[in-house]
Amino acid sequence: MRATGAEARARIRSGFDGPTSGMAPGLVQANLISVPADWAFDVLLFTQRNPKPCPVIDVLEPGQVESALAPYSDIRTDIPGYRIWNNGELTGEVTDATQAWAEHPDLVSFLIGCSFTFENGLTEAGISIRHQDAGRNVPMYRTTTACAPAGRISGDMVVSMRPIPAAQVAEAVRITDRFPAVHGAPVHIGEPDQIGIADLSSPDFGDAPVIEDGDIPVFWACGVTPQAAIQASGVPFAITHSPGKMFITDEPEDTYRR
Amino acid sequence: MRATGAEARARIRSGFDGPTSGMAPGLVQANLISVPADWAFDVLLFTQRNPKPCPVIDVLEPGQVESALAPYSDIRTDIPGYRIWNNGELTGEVTDATQAWAEHPDLVSFLIGCSFTFENGLTEAGISIRHQDAGRNVPMYRTTTACAPAGRISGDMVVSMRPIPAAQVAEAVRITDRFPAVHGAPVHIGEPDQIGIADLSSPDFGDAPVIEDGDIPVFWACGVTPQAAIQASGVPFAITHSPGKMFITDEPEDTYRR
Repeated sequence: MRATGAEARARIRSGFDGPTSGMAPGLVQANLISVPADWAFDVLLFTQRNPKPCPVIDVLEPGQVESALAPYSDIRTDIPGYRIWNNGELTGEVTDATQAWAEHPDLVSFLIGCSFTFENGLTEAGISIRHQDAGRNVPMYRTTTACAPAGRISGDMVVSMRPIPAAQVAEAVRITDRFPAVHGAPVHIGEPDQIGIADLSSPDFGDAPVIEDGDIPVFWACGVTPQAAIQASGVPFAITHSPGKMFITDEPEDTYRR
Repeated sequence: MRATGAEARARIRSGFDGPTSGMAPGLVQANLISVPADWAFDVLLFTQRNPKPCPVIDVLEPGQVESALAPYSDIRTDIPGYRIWNNGELTGEVTDATQAWAEHPDLVSFLIGCSFTFENGLTEAGISIRHQDAGRNVPMYRTTTACAPAGRISGDMVVSMRPIPAAQVAEAVRITDRFPAVHGAPVHIGEPDQIGIADLSSPDFGDAPVIEDGDIPVFWACGVTPQAAIQASGVPFAITHSPGKMFITDEPEDTYRR
C-alpha cells in the first residue's frame, strides 16, 4: 500500500533523515526556502522570473508553519534535513529547524515543486530511475546558465540529472513536460560541458550517478537553484531543505499534470 | 498592415485615450498595477495565489519605467488612461502618470496579461467580438467569487464578458485555453447570477454589452481584479490602468500560446 503524505511526514518527524526520492509515490514533493520577510519580495520575484527551476506551489506567510498542501504539517520538523545559511554561507545542517525558526519568527517560506514528483510517472512508463534502484540520492550540478536576476537575488541554475536509455529519452521528455509545476521537461539533454558541467561523476549535491551503457544524461531544472542564489547573493539569513531531502505534501501529482 | 507595439504606444503617448481592444492585433496587451515597495510582496503573492485573474507577465522594480516586454516604453505615459488610488479610494483619472510617479518613486509595477490578447485568435476562428464590432469597451463585472487572500490583500474576482453564439462557445474555450498567461479558458459560461452578476446590461466597468439572439454570455477572469482588491483592502496608494485601456507590449501572442 502506498504511504500517505501524513504517514511519510510522521516517519520523518520521528527520525528518518535520508533522501525522499521514492517515498509516498504519487504525491507532490517540494523544496524549501525560508527567508526573513524583508527578503520575501526578492525571492518571490526571483521565482516568478525563473519558473522552470523555481515553480512555487505554496507560500507560507510570517508565523505560518503549516502548508495548505499538507494539513497538520509543520514545516519546521517535517523535512529530513535542513540547511542554515548566514550571509550566504552554509553554517549548519539540522534535522529539526524549530530553534532556528524561533530565532527568526518573521520567516516567509516558499515551497517549490520537486522533480521527484514525476519520477513515479517515469517508472510507470517503464523508465528506470537509476539513483532509486541504487538506493542513492539524485545527482545535482551547478551550471553556468544564469538565472534572471530579481532585486538583490541572482545566481546560476542548478540541475538534477537522470541517466535515461537513448530509446526512452523522448518518452521521458513527453512525460515530464506534463508537469510544469515540478520543473516540467528537461532543460538540457546530453553534452554536459555545454552547461558548464565538467565531470558528471562529481555532482555538487547528492550522490554520484549510476550511468549504464547506452544512457544519455538528461538534465532537469532543480529546486536547489535558490540555494545557489542565496550563496551568490549573500542573503543575510535563510533556511532551506538539504538537497534530496524534501517536504512531502498531500497533493496527488495529478493536481499538477496538465 | 498591422501596427507594431512601438507605433501603438507612440499613438497613445501622443494623445489616444480610448480602449485598446483591437489595437496592434497579435501583440500581448497588459493590465497595470503599481504599488509602493512596502506592498509589493503582498501584491505579488496575491497574483501567485490567483493566477487565473492575475497572470503576471512582467514586474518592474522600483525606479524602473521601461518594460522588458516593450523596449523604449515608458509605463508612466504609454497607457491611454490611469487611475490613481489613495487608501482604497479612486481619487483621480489621468492620461499621463508621470507626476504621480514622481511623488512615489519606489513604485513596483506589475503587468498582468489581458484577454484582449486572445481576441485576435477568436476573430481568426470566425468568432465575432461583439464589443469590437460595436466600437465599445468590453463589459466587466464584479463577481462574488472570492480570490485567495495574500498578506494584507483580499477581494473578489472581476470578469470580462463576451457574448458568443452557442454553436461557437466550445471553440472559444478551446482557443482561449491555449493562452494561460492571458487568463486562459473562461471561468464561467452562462448563468451570470451564479457568480453574483444580477444585471448583464449594467457592467461595473467598460460599456454595456451587445448581445444577439442565441448568444451565451461567456466570462473570463479579468486583470481588473487587483483594482477590486485595492479597494477592498485599503491599499494606501496605487496606480492602475483604466479598465479597457491597456499597455501594449512588443510580445507576439504566440509567445504565450502553449
